[in-house]
Amino acid sequence: MKAEIISIGSELTSGRNLDTNARWLSLRLGEIGIPVAFHTTIADDLDDNVAAFRLASERADVVLTTGGLGPTQDDLTREVMARVGGVELVFDEPSYEAIRGMFARRNRVMPERNRVQAMVPAGAEVLPNACGTAPGVGMKLGRAWFAAMPGVPSEMYAMYEAQVRPRLVAMGLAGGVFVQRKINTFGMGESQVEEKLLDLTARGHIPEVGITASDATISLRIFAMGPDLAAVNALIEPVERTIRERLGVLVFGDDEDELQDAVVRLLAEKRKTFAVAEGVTGGLLGQRLAGVPGATQWFRGGVIAYTDEATRDLLGVPAELLREHGAVSEQVAVAMAKGCRERLGTDLAVSTVGVAGPGGGSDVHPVGTVFAALAHAGGVSTQTFSWLGTRAEVQSRTAKLALNLARLYLLRGG
Amino acid sequence: MKAEIISIGSELTSGRNLDTNARWLSLRLGEIGIPVAFHTTIADDLDDNVAAFRLASERADVVLTTGGLGPTQDDLTREVMARVGGVELVFDEPSYEAIRGMFARRNRVMPERNRVQAMVPAGAEVLPNACGTAPGVGMKLGRAWFAAMPGVPSEMYAMYEAQVRPRLVAMGLAGGVFVQRKINTFGMGESQVEEKLLDLTARGHIPEVGITASDATISLRIFAMGPDLAAVNALIEPVERTIRERLGVLVFGDDEDELQDAVVRLLAEKRKTFAVAEGVTGGLLGQRLAGVPGATQWFRGGVIAYTDEATRDLLGVPAELLREHGAVSEQVAVAMAKGCRERLGTDLAVSTVGVAGPGGGSDVHPVGTVFAALAHAGGVSTQTFSWLGTRAEVQSRTAKLALNLARLYLLRGG
Repeated sequence: MKAEIISIGSELTSGRNLDTNARWLSLRLGEIGIPVAFHTTIADDLDDNVAAFRLASERADVVLTTGGLGPTQDDLTREVMARVGGVELVFDEPSYEAIRGMFARRNRVMPERNRVQAMVPAGAEVLPNACGTAPGVGMKLGRAWFAAMPGVPSEMYAMYEAQVRPRLVAMGLAGGVFVQRKINTFGMGESQVEEKLLDLTARGHIPEVGITASDATISLRIFAMGPDLAAVNALIEPVERTIRERLGVLVFGDDEDELQDAVVRLLAEKRKTFAVAEGVTGGLLGQRLAGVPGATQWFRGGVIAYTDEATRDLLGVPAELLREHGAVSEQVAVAMAKGCRERLGTDLAVSTVGVAGPGGGSDVHPVGTVFAALAHAGGVSTQTFSWLGTRAEVQSRTAKLALNLARLYLLRGG
Repeated sequence: MKAEIISIGSELTSGRNLDTNARWLSLRLGEIGIPVAFHTTIADDLDDNVAAFRLASERADVVLTTGGLGPTQDDLTREVMARVGGVELVFDEPSYEAIRGMFARRNRVMPERNRVQAMVPAGAEVLPNACGTAPGVGMKLGRAWFAAMPGVPSEMYAMYEAQVRPRLVAMGLAGGVFVQRKINTFGMGESQVEEKLLDLTARGHIPEVGITASDATISLRIFAMGPDLAAVNALIEPVERTIRERLGVLVFGDDEDELQDAVVRLLAEKRKTFAVAEGVTGGLLGQRLAGVPGATQWFRGGVIAYTDEATRDLLGVPAELLREHGAVSEQVAVAMAKGCRERLGTDLAVSTVGVAGPGGGSDVHPVGTVFAALAHAGGVSTQTFSWLGTRAEVQSRTAKLALNLARLYLLRGG
């Protein structure tokens, strides 16, 4: 059993865009025990596409393709499948209606060009697209079952989950069970975290435990494979328990959880409302909280104070305080958090100030120096840190620092 | 002339690691006029490697490989090249000394298994590795010149620059000057934009014109190649002029320009100050503007109004208006923009409201419905739209819609 993933687009072969679809699909196939032997990336060239599809039809059992299903002239996948299968393209009425309906629901008229997206190779199965106009195509070519999906990641993810994976399982192509569990921590460096777990991260340990750092979030990954879920979980669970015991409050979540998810969960649990006063983060805290489904009930909003005037007028921070200590100071961070909490009438409010760089550093406050403050019923907690990194990294990590301040306060029973 | 890039390693086909080497090499080859037609990724499997190298030796003129040059049993590239070339592996004394020296300089003894890294296919050229133990291999196989490099990105980058690129140029494989120009537009769908340019995007048009959509930004890319820059520019310029003429104010920038860059540029030009009142975008507008170097002089900050209370208290939107029309309404967007402009004392203020989903939609306002408003000295301009997409996509595209409203106003002489 071998799978191949084909990514289509000149923007990929030229290096303009980085392909992340092939990796995502490899991980998904791995989860259902289908090993991937090849990734192939081809430009929008008809002959190269036909040759690549033909080769895949000879050497693989499952072939997943992404891209080339759009409405424009360089979208070739439908035609390529028809040629390799030796069949005609035929008009599929239900696909046409689905595409028209997608436009109609947005009060828009379908451009004539999109009609081509309803053409499918004769005998192929249409894979409906819940998130976009391009239907996918399922088809047996040579020894392989092909599923052609759109290149837009969000559309592809949804189509894989709803249409492709169920078919792979139903056709009996899925093998054993592979499980990866990820435990996310914040508040300690990678090597300090690893020192607490050296026996588990040693090479050869079963199940395998890996450690990775991403933007100051340190994650532990446990990998295990077995004939069924019960066998795999029996391997993973004791290790997971040990990791959680040793790391304690450093652990904020699992898998794709981010700090904002943990904060919103705790806000809901403790029934506390939340607001943000953003200096150095410039809107990033708000954006992250607003990205959590269901945050609206607890996250009220806040203020982006990008100048001293805004800090004064919108948060009531006294002009003298700003003059005396400067906008990048613990005192101003405290006053911002307090002012924000009062003006938005929330239980909690966090603030951030700092020097994101690349310019603006000084001897007292070099680039990367930040202050975060959390105002709550009992007063104000603060934290300062000095990040090494680019402007975007300083902003991102400072947003995490502020969220973590709120998380730890809520955990302590705030 | 066609190039192929082969990435070797089971950690890539399994999705465990994301391959960024292929993209990096594609960009470098593009810069010296060598178009890349294929990326191939294979696991550490001897037969698959031999087949992939053989195929590349038949369909490409330049083949760059990464990975498989380490000292362990799953490092197969040296053996694969020897098999495809029909030659023996021979011991290369200078490589052996270089590897030993690399260990000696770190006060370590060379492990015996590293000796295998000094074995090269007979007749091949050794490409010295300045940053690691694995020497590269240069060799003609079939119609192609192969350069095998290590998979570690830093080692590969250094070897490409010092060893591979000079050889490609010396062998006359570099094809002169390659230029790509990108023109970014916002405000019309991909197929509608293409309808205005069908003569230019047709297959075979010289220079090649491609169209891509990324999060509602539609970009035209003009690709041209020629013996020198003057010849390439002579190809590109008339096409670029035609595109700009036909698309008019849809065009907001070039290359890596984003809408916020265009807005900050226009704000500076017209000496106008700017603020944001964020409902559905929740901080994203602020974050994007705060990311533009030099924005501080024009971007003052704003308000994240994620609840009716915040909208009322921080922006002065009357409670009756919120009750009567609901927070997701043109009326509330208008009142938010006006309130924001007054409270921050700026020349312009934009607001966003809407339903980002996945929940919260209704018959009147399905998920994806958004309103943006721009308050200025002459009154308020508004726009509404209905996006297809995930929550993050709706938020991102709505931020663009609001920025575009400001851009068009400033362009008209605001």
